[in-house]
Amino acid sequence: MLRWIKSALGSWFAWGLLALLAPLALMGQEGREAGEGSPTVSRLPNGGDWDPCCAHPCTNKGVCLSYPDRSYICDCTDTGFHGENCTKPYLGTRLKLLLRPSPDWLHDFLTSDRFVWRIIDAVPYLTNAAMKYIYMTRGDMVDSPNRYDSDHPYPTLHAYFNETYYGRTLPPVPHHCPTPLGIAGPKVLPPVEQLVEKVFARRKFLPEPHDSNALFQYYAQHFTHQFFRTDYAKGGAFTKGTGGVDVSNIYGLTEQHRRGIRLFKDGMLKYEMVNGEMFPPYLKDVEGVTMEIPPHIPVDKGSLFALGHPFFVLLPGLFMYSTLWLREHNRVCSILKSEHSDWDDERLYQTAKLIITGEVIQITIEDYVQHLSQYKLRMRYRPEVAHGTRFQFDNRINVEFVHLYHWHPLVPETIKIGEKDYGFMDMAFSVKPVLEHGLDQFIQALSRARAGKLGARNHPKYTLPTLIKSLNIQRNLRFQSFNNYRKRFDMPPYETFEELTGETEIAQVLRDLYGHVDAVEYYVGLICERPSPSITPLTMVNIGGPWSVKGLVANPVSSPKFWKPSTFGGEVGFDIIKAASLTNLLCNNMVNKTGCEHISFKVPPDTLM
Amino acid sequence: MLRWIKSALGSWFAWGLLALLAPLALMGQEGREAGEGSPTVSRLPNGGDWDPCCAHPCTNKGVCLSYPDRSYICDCTDTGFHGENCTKPYLGTRLKLLLRPSPDWLHDFLTSDRFVWRIIDAVPYLTNAAMKYIYMTRGDMVDSPNRYDSDHPYPTLHAYFNETYYGRTLPPVPHHCPTPLGIAGPKVLPPVEQLVEKVFARRKFLPEPHDSNALFQYYAQHFTHQFFRTDYAKGGAFTKGTGGVDVSNIYGLTEQHRRGIRLFKDGMLKYEMVNGEMFPPYLKDVEGVTMEIPPHIPVDKGSLFALGHPFFVLLPGLFMYSTLWLREHNRVCSILKSEHSDWDDERLYQTAKLIITGEVIQITIEDYVQHLSQYKLRMRYRPEVAHGTRFQFDNRINVEFVHLYHWHPLVPETIKIGEKDYGFMDMAFSVKPVLEHGLDQFIQALSRARAGKLGARNHPKYTLPTLIKSLNIQRNLRFQSFNNYRKRFDMPPYETFEELTGETEIAQVLRDLYGHVDAVEYYVGLICERPSPSITPLTMVNIGGPWSVKGLVANPVSSPKFWKPSTFGGEVGFDIIKAASLTNLLCNNMVNKTGCEHISFKVPPDTLM
Repeated sequence: MLRWIKSALGSWFAWGLLALLAPLALMGQEGREAGEGSPTVSRLPNGGDWDPCCAHPCTNKGVCLSYPDRSYICDCTDTGFHGENCTKPYLGTRLKLLLRPSPDWLHDFLTSDRFVWRIIDAVPYLTNAAMKYIYMTRGDMVDSPNRYDSDHPYPTLHAYFNETYYGRTLPPVPHHCPTPLGIAGPKVLPPVEQLVEKVFARRKFLPEPHDSNALFQYYAQHFTHQFFRTDYAKGGAFTKGTGGVDVSNIYGLTEQHRRGIRLFKDGMLKYEMVNGEMFPPYLKDVEGVTMEIPPHIPVDKGSLFALGHPFFVLLPGLFMYSTLWLREHNRVCSILKSEHSDWDDERLYQTAKLIITGEVIQITIEDYVQHLSQYKLRMRYRPEVAHGTRFQFDNRINVEFVHLYHWHPLVPETIKIGEKDYGFMDMAFSVKPVLEHGLDQFIQALSRARAGKLGARNHPKYTLPTLIKSLNIQRNLRFQSFNNYRKRFDMPPYETFEELTGETEIAQVLRDLYGHVDAVEYYVGLICERPSPSITPLTMVNIGGPWSVKGLVANPVSSPKFWKPSTFGGEVGFDIIKAASLTNLLCNNMVNKTGCEHISFKVPPDTLM
Repeated sequence: MLRWIKSALGSWFAWGLLALLAPLALMGQEGREAGEGSPTVSRLPNGGDWDPCCAHPCTNKGVCLSYPDRSYICDCTDTGFHGENCTKPYLGTRLKLLLRPSPDWLHDFLTSDRFVWRIIDAVPYLTNAAMKYIYMTRGDMVDSPNRYDSDHPYPTLHAYFNETYYGRTLPPVPHHCPTPLGIAGPKVLPPVEQLVEKVFARRKFLPEPHDSNALFQYYAQHFTHQFFRTDYAKGGAFTKGTGGVDVSNIYGLTEQHRRGIRLFKDGMLKYEMVNGEMFPPYLKDVEGVTMEIPPHIPVDKGSLFALGHPFFVLLPGLFMYSTLWLREHNRVCSILKSEHSDWDDERLYQTAKLIITGEVIQITIEDYVQHLSQYKLRMRYRPEVAHGTRFQFDNRINVEFVHLYHWHPLVPETIKIGEKDYGFMDMAFSVKPVLEHGLDQFIQALSRARAGKLGARNHPKYTLPTLIKSLNIQRNLRFQSFNNYRKRFDMPPYETFEELTGETEIAQVLRDLYGHVDAVEYYVGLICERPSPSITPLTMVNIGGPWSVKGLVANPVSSPKFWKPSTFGGEVGFDIIKAASLTNLLCNNMVNKTGCEHISFKVPPDTLM
């Protein structure tokens, strides 16, 4: 009898299984594009005796594969397109394309004042939907897992498993191609020094037209150097970092460094009281930590501080942010300690670090990216909207991101602190301006210092050697052209130099140097592009945005298993993250709080040029 | 006029945007469970003066957080449950639970002959749906990104970013808990040696009841040691490996090792012809490669081979698989070379390695896991069904997986090769049996050698020191109890020792040792559990399965951007993966192919015993 019941149940289950599987299979199709059918073997119309893939014939992210007889195929799998060069959209893609506005138009729309932004921000349901749209469309732009490294112009397992490589969005141009950019442009690129002189060097300080200040500039630098950690000993293709927002700029990258700056009491970081204010500890008082001081810089070793990042002692603005985060960490520890008096030092430290990570992400999205993009849509950190979706909670830093972020034009020529004017070099290789005026006054000064415009002919003189180094690395790593990156991120390539620059003078300089707009190099195009309503030109927003949003939302703390109150010591800790803002970071950690709530990434309205 | 059109378009777009966002937000909810409402602060009814989380009160994967006053909360976020101890299902969960058969019943069903399996296998659409169901349910069981390490009984950022740690599915039992397993069981666990003698040591060889052979046993060992690479110098919590199927057991883990065994011609690996057959190169002929030979083992250094994995020279079965994969790699290289005569050595090598990775995954799923599970549902490698879903293409090896895989009971006492009987120790510390009889005869012999039963009292004598080491590591790492792992993987905890073992003798031994079934240790429970229709007891299938399937499907080659013909050199390479099977691996690489197609992971039907 029991056997009969079991068998009957089994049959019922078997048919039920079939009934359940049928719609499941259908669901399987929703996220996929049909990619069937063998690709066409093609030949370039005027192909010479070179690898046809050097001409980058495959569109819409199709992958080119060539054969010894100079034929090639485009692998259009998973692109939504088919045909010889992946130019023909499938029906679903055609519909999507119909609905999708042009990148320029969309950007204008996002950065213009509209009533709709207020509605979206007021209705939580719509806010979440908007954030989901942003996270998903940005995330979809980034290969995850990573497919390329700088040593192979084709996918390898190595690019994935060898995490000392930076990732790469577009593979390098193969060495066997006719020109450094494939087939476009001259066989020998214009000398880097000539380029720098003609299009990059600052002639006269050009102010940032959206009122960005030096507080913004230093935030960018402080934040990004936790994951931009090129291992120059190995070459520009390699990193010492871990691939994301690991807060190693605050806590140190190695275990030895991390332990060196811990107090090992109540979870706190070591500190030193200077003029009654909490500052990082002196280097002489910690063990196992080294700061990177260039050999030709005369530094008083006794007054050197130990920070999470080895070069942050070189610039007072980075020292300032390091100090703020140190104070914030210790503040969070004391809150946790009052809630969990039974916790040991280790648990307080680790949990505070998780909270600080959440705060860093929230401030970066809601204050920094908000200002950077100049979107009128209010940006929010709502990782839960990406849970249960195809979003991949894993990140790799792409080497193109490192070089996109050379933002030295932001640096002002002088900064006035109190009554004193500091020149460019007075603000380098020393943290004295901070100690002399106190952190509060230094912050106030940075907030009133107008940043420079991110565009052509605005790189300060002293940063040109760094720029030259970066441009040379990009050439060594055989970066593809600016127009190829535009295509990779769904933007149409520019057809003329004038269309690119939006003027005629630099357009002519570029024409003389490159001959064809398809030969304009990556960083050159990014900087020389006509201004946009954002702080950076449009291509930089549309390329940097995906890398940035992906890195922030893919952080472990944003993932389904971490993003819950218990991870952060309960609701108390979770609420610290949700309340995080630049204002709170400042108001909670400045000694004199007068006016702290008015400080932002913009100079105050009354600031003179 | 243009301005008017633009403004009208903008308005239209704004309203369209709202219309589009509304359903998007709704979609956002589908993958999520409601997790609102503050958790209840609870107290254990008979709580003593210890941390209530030591009693593991939160069910359904809720996270316990305790407070200094001995109260606790269960964080039920994202579990599908709510209530004090996450015991109350939300409506969606209730429906899922209604539809879900019990784990035992489902396993019986999957391992019994049913007409439905033939239908599913015959209709590609249903096959894909079934595989999708398997990949997703298994994948959902694994935390990705990883949340715990062995040094912290709470989530940390460190557990994620410090990849020298193995991951961890359940956090360690805190040191401050009343007993090593929390509150259950004795304050001091029974001596490991006593445990080994009473429940693990082989008395009489027990044959594997599903006809598994030594070819299966060595496959398990060869495959898993690419990612089980405990760094004993640092302790059991750490690994030297990369976190997945990186084929480092074939190619080497470090770049120096990898380069040492490459031929640097036509993509091939170095080889040595012995008696007219292709074998790995001699160690003396390669540079920069070390093999790990225990100091007390007398080995003729001149006849030592250089393999991808440093200890694979110690066992002839591992040497055999290494040789097969070497031959397969070089075979694939020659196919690629005939298709792409213009490719250099590097591209042939890297592309062949991608193909070999795909082959390893396909054979592991379609031959190895198929046999291991004894599912009558035909298992398939169809990574495309996981694309566009919440499946995370990233993997971490969990330390509990390492210890689950101590499968020494599989090892037979003797193997007959040709007319010669080899004892247990004749098959260790030497690859002579392979060279003496040739690879073909050795493979035939392994296929006829019956493996041992994976269960209690069947660990061969010579492997007991390794077992003792493993059990001690599990205690040092403070593994949670067997019953807690059952709960973690959605299986009800056992209530009596007899229910666990399915008999009375070992049940009594365990009762004497542990007192309560909730105190049975992880590996002890895994091995002593009553037999199932699979090769291993059921809990091992239901815990190991998720880690295994997740690792195979999360491999980069399985991910959307890799899984396309161009990655593998075109359709030719892609087809090699799709045709991969144990049979093809053998038939393509044995010298004498007679009967190769009949060799499997089971002894031939006419085998005695």
